[in-house]
Amino acid sequence: MEQTLFWIVPAAAVIALLLAWYFYRGMMRRSEGTETMQRIASHVRKGAMSYLRQQYKIVGIVFLALVIVFSIMAYGFQLQNPWVPVAFLTGGFFSGLSGFLGMKTATNASARTANAARESLNGGLNVAFRSGAVMGLVVVGLGLLDISIWYVLLNMFVDNANPMQKMTMITTTMLTFGMGASTQALFARVGGGIYTKAADVGADLVGKVEAGIPEDDPRNPATIADNVGDNVGDVAGMGADLYESYCGSILATAALGAAAFMQAAVPDPAMQVKAVIAPMLIAAVGIILSIIGIFTVRTREDADMKGLLKALSRGTNLSSALIVAATFGILWVLQITNWALIGCSVVVGLLVGIVIGQATEYYTSQSYKPTQRLAESGKTGPATVIISGVGLGMVSTAIPVIAVVAGIILSYWFASGFDFTNVGMGLYGIGIAAVGMLSTLGITLATDAYGPIADNAGGNAEMSGLGESVRKRTDALDSLGNTTAATGKGFAIGSAALTGLALLASYIEEIRIGLDRLGQTFIQLGDRAVALHDATFTDFMAYFEVNLMSPKVLSGMFIGSMMAFLFCGLTMNAVGRAAAHMVDEVRRQFREIKGILEGKADPDYARCVQISTKGAQREMVFPSVLAIVAPIITGLVFGVPGVIGLLTGGLSAGFVLAIFMANSGGAWDNAKKYVEEGNFGGKGSEVHKATVTGDTVGDPFKDTSGPSLNILIKLMSMVAIVMAGLTVSWSLF
Amino acid sequence: MEQTLFWIVPAAAVIALLLAWYFYRGMMRRSEGTETMQRIASHVRKGAMSYLRQQYKIVGIVFLALVIVFSIMAYGFQLQNPWVPVAFLTGGFFSGLSGFLGMKTATNASARTANAARESLNGGLNVAFRSGAVMGLVVVGLGLLDISIWYVLLNMFVDNANPMQKMTMITTTMLTFGMGASTQALFARVGGGIYTKAADVGADLVGKVEAGIPEDDPRNPATIADNVGDNVGDVAGMGADLYESYCGSILATAALGAAAFMQAAVPDPAMQVKAVIAPMLIAAVGIILSIIGIFTVRTREDADMKGLLKALSRGTNLSSALIVAATFGILWVLQITNWALIGCSVVVGLLVGIVIGQATEYYTSQSYKPTQRLAESGKTGPATVIISGVGLGMVSTAIPVIAVVAGIILSYWFASGFDFTNVGMGLYGIGIAAVGMLSTLGITLATDAYGPIADNAGGNAEMSGLGESVRKRTDALDSLGNTTAATGKGFAIGSAALTGLALLASYIEEIRIGLDRLGQTFIQLGDRAVALHDATFTDFMAYFEVNLMSPKVLSGMFIGSMMAFLFCGLTMNAVGRAAAHMVDEVRRQFREIKGILEGKADPDYARCVQISTKGAQREMVFPSVLAIVAPIITGLVFGVPGVIGLLTGGLSAGFVLAIFMANSGGAWDNAKKYVEEGNFGGKGSEVHKATVTGDTVGDPFKDTSGPSLNILIKLMSMVAIVMAGLTVSWSLF
Repeated sequence: MEQTLFWIVPAAAVIALLLAWYFYRGMMRRSEGTETMQRIASHVRKGAMSYLRQQYKIVGIVFLALVIVFSIMAYGFQLQNPWVPVAFLTGGFFSGLSGFLGMKTATNASARTANAARESLNGGLNVAFRSGAVMGLVVVGLGLLDISIWYVLLNMFVDNANPMQKMTMITTTMLTFGMGASTQALFARVGGGIYTKAADVGADLVGKVEAGIPEDDPRNPATIADNVGDNVGDVAGMGADLYESYCGSILATAALGAAAFMQAAVPDPAMQVKAVIAPMLIAAVGIILSIIGIFTVRTREDADMKGLLKALSRGTNLSSALIVAATFGILWVLQITNWALIGCSVVVGLLVGIVIGQATEYYTSQSYKPTQRLAESGKTGPATVIISGVGLGMVSTAIPVIAVVAGIILSYWFASGFDFTNVGMGLYGIGIAAVGMLSTLGITLATDAYGPIADNAGGNAEMSGLGESVRKRTDALDSLGNTTAATGKGFAIGSAALTGLALLASYIEEIRIGLDRLGQTFIQLGDRAVALHDATFTDFMAYFEVNLMSPKVLSGMFIGSMMAFLFCGLTMNAVGRAAAHMVDEVRRQFREIKGILEGKADPDYARCVQISTKGAQREMVFPSVLAIVAPIITGLVFGVPGVIGLLTGGLSAGFVLAIFMANSGGAWDNAKKYVEEGNFGGKGSEVHKATVTGDTVGDPFKDTSGPSLNILIKLMSMVAIVMAGLTVSWSLF
Repeated sequence: MEQTLFWIVPAAAVIALLLAWYFYRGMMRRSEGTETMQRIASHVRKGAMSYLRQQYKIVGIVFLALVIVFSIMAYGFQLQNPWVPVAFLTGGFFSGLSGFLGMKTATNASARTANAARESLNGGLNVAFRSGAVMGLVVVGLGLLDISIWYVLLNMFVDNANPMQKMTMITTTMLTFGMGASTQALFARVGGGIYTKAADVGADLVGKVEAGIPEDDPRNPATIADNVGDNVGDVAGMGADLYESYCGSILATAALGAAAFMQAAVPDPAMQVKAVIAPMLIAAVGIILSIIGIFTVRTREDADMKGLLKALSRGTNLSSALIVAATFGILWVLQITNWALIGCSVVVGLLVGIVIGQATEYYTSQSYKPTQRLAESGKTGPATVIISGVGLGMVSTAIPVIAVVAGIILSYWFASGFDFTNVGMGLYGIGIAAVGMLSTLGITLATDAYGPIADNAGGNAEMSGLGESVRKRTDALDSLGNTTAATGKGFAIGSAALTGLALLASYIEEIRIGLDRLGQTFIQLGDRAVALHDATFTDFMAYFEVNLMSPKVLSGMFIGSMMAFLFCGLTMNAVGRAAAHMVDEVRRQFREIKGILEGKADPDYARCVQISTKGAQREMVFPSVLAIVAPIITGLVFGVPGVIGLLTGGLSAGFVLAIFMANSGGAWDNAKKYVEEGNFGGKGSEVHKATVTGDTVGDPFKDTSGPSLNILIKLMSMVAIVMAGLTVSWSLF
């Protein structure tokens, strides 16, 4: 039965892709508006596409190098599975494709959204939201499609007489495609993040602060680059990122399911298959529920802001509520061991996501005290804005961490049947919680992705001179997106922590396979010899001397924490350098091109686009490669204990650092908006200037370094998993 | 023999204290200069003393509460050793006394330094450095005295027939006095840090930036508060802090020595005693060598800056070189197992300290590229200064972390006789490395403490109108201090990481004692029963299920990382709030007191002192109490695995966060100085304004939050150790 049920997974994937195509076609049939609007949209589109081409070239080289390494390891030294190089490539390809399609849609949608907003707010919402939904559906559709194809292929070709060992090999091989997705995602996030923030910071510093012209003003040479940046960073980057999160959580959970049921007292191959496909089925049903949610997002023609917000929330809440019921249904149909308790783990995951989302909103929205007080600190200048913002971000880590800790303990506790020694099932529960959290990604991503589309629509409206009323509508759409996006961010960050834990467990499984490949059949523990395939997580920990008094583990933890900071520092510096070039260029144009500020001469937009592109390409390589190299070197020097230390240290410090950076950045952004709404002197006042400094500092915090950390955590785990064969065969200490 | 050698320890302590008294007397015999100089010095002294009185009142209440809790645990429920409440009190008392005496000296020395600098640079150096040496000698003298007294007392009164078990009880009881010292130190650092930075930020923001008057100008109402702040933060806070580091490293190492030799294949009570007194002896000899170093710091009357720097470096280098030789000598005399290898661990510790110091200097001194480039980023305004400074600080964590990791692995590897399974001796090696690093604290602290004295002398000179030439000399003394202080900081931060690890191991020992007190005689591991007193570190880890797949451990790690950020955030916010009050007050005085800016009316200094005092007192309690409560609650909820997770997570994230904050802050400070030296437009330029914003943001980074983190890490461990009896007797999960 379970093999029949599996076909729901590819079916849901195809439905998602077809619907995405339908929405895309519908959007493309609409008018792009006046000639000016079309021209500007085409500028942005071309800039974005040319950036993506450049990006894929460089990423292609990195992939080529890694595939060669993997091939040598797999075919030359038998340190790895022969499927690894191919699986790795498909993961990277589909992740990149998600970003590309999302961006293609977004760059086509912005002018159309602006044009629709000329007639009504609701029209604008409709175009923007449906276009966002294209991205959401493409990500989940491609993700499940890739998973399905590999599951079918590996089931056909993996050769192992023992069905349970075969399933373990299948699931761990599939993790490799997760590494491809993570690598692509990291480059997309880092490169896109540097691009968008260099342009944004550059445009703001000279345009807003020095020349005193509004945002998106056509006189600002960096304004097209800024709009391109929204697309390559916030759309293409986010698409690749969430593709990775989505697939990573499903694959890690499948691998944990395979491992958990292999260790069961009475091994049952059918039960193992069920445990492997359960996360896929939950995700597949999540797609259908997301689609239902998307179709409920409609409002009456005369709806106000509140009505719109209600419409969006109704969609996501409906999907979330339905997924809870559906999960229990799926688990009941599968008759998986402890099905009701595992279902509770899913509920735990969803609740954690909601709590993190609410906390994010509390700390970063101008409707609440913290951000209002942050804005007030602008009365004493930019320095106190920065101090208070850093303080706010650091304090704001408490609730999300406590929520995740509660989520870890409870999802483990439930799934293990209230028995902490049942490690396999407990970890499976953590994975299932992450899958539950991301299962309705189709709709949450739609509400997320529509933000930058609305933002770009605003840019288009401003540059095309469509007038105050249209700009007001696009602004309303934009700020609506900010509110709903908070929940989406909560889900993304929470799932990263849980998936990180699940990947840690998968690493141990991979170690088993690595030892197997080296021809080892048992592990010696004191005077007890345990057969390799019967050894538990705890046995492996004892065998490799992985304990919290081991200097290797502790060294790994220090390095892991440091990696999170180093990575952030490198990306911050990259933005700083690229932005400085942009500032110089904008200043040069204001100085040298006569009549530019009076609107009599056209600025050289293309040059700014080029500067951002070059800066991002140059700067993204080192931090990204570092993330790939660090686990390999740590493994070669300190062996398995060092790698586990690295992953746990990186996970715990990186998760907290990511929340801090995201929330500080978000609060600075909204504190500025709060002042612009007329508080503490409003636009142009000294307080406003101080908060603009905060916003500028916050840009790389929240859109470059912060979100990249989520990927860094998982990529380091993925690399460790793929390189496990090498780590077990040699280490210095 | 070893019991006779022990008497070197109290002897060295007494010598240090006598010499401190001699230096103090010598300094007091000098003239405080003109009447104005005396008046200003007396203002600062009074402000500082009144602050300290307030501070000790509040800390006294906290200590009282804790002593009551400990007494109930010890005498009511037998969950703790009866000596704990008393030992706790003495640690707090001596730590506070170190800070008090250091501050008394510093506040008396500043005007005398300024007065001596009127005649010659060398004269100024002499007064300031000798006064700094008072602080250094008081800290090490009181530290070893307290250790000696307790060692003698507990040897007399602890009742246990087994000499080796008795020694373990003695050393773990002594750790409690470390908790007293840490608690006092945290309050001193946090309270002092908030005080000094509220005053500094307030004075700078309104005085320098808005009114455009120089630093320490008598027209600025916050200027006395600023000078008081240097004393309560940088002197009293640092004194209490380093007292804690010094004692903590010695006590933790003694406890590890007792544990390691108890687990030896052939237990030998005499060898255990040697292992316990070895760190004390190294520290005692370090005092004597520090004194020799201090006396070599003299220059010819006509010495220039370079000559002065050479004189200072000669002193510290000489002490460091001698301690290496002396350590091998001590270990050889004791004929301790593996004595030569343990000696190598000490060398490793010293080298790590030097590397961290050099790296700190490279990243934060204006003589090198990173800080120069940071200053250059001011060309594009304050936002890019902040972005680049954050990036610089984060990137700068790499070298110190790699150095500490190398230090951990090598000191463990040497002391364990190249055998990673020899956990006891390996950990002892890590502790010994930390002791080696801090052994010459007497002189390194002298070079550190003399910085704020020179700074205050400058303030006094400025306010007394002593003229440009005197101010130039005091500035030279000040910047000389900054250079030598970098190495001192490296030692403090490196030793915090190593001591943190050593305390982690001591925690396991304390668990053993806790189980013993509960009447448990063995621990059950699968079907193997191990006698409590024979159980190894690894056995305890297995018994409490402390492994890196345990959700409790991982939850603890998340909470530990979060604690570091939360603590920083709370202290940052505290500075922000207190500084805002100060800014309001200074602005009010400029507005309301007529003629203040023309120097015709006196500002109300006392009111500013009062604002800083109140702000610091109000704000320091919550973060400090949180640090004490967090390990207790984590223990009650998650038991031993959660606590170990908390400590490792807090240690790894906190250490990296501390380096980031210290180096960002230091670089911002010096980037501003670099601009003031005439680069990028010099004083008053837009670049200067931008770097002043960076400097202001950096103030709480480097002087409040960053240094407090070192104490936080150790205090959480100390609390866990003292509360171990409670944790083993009950936990929720």
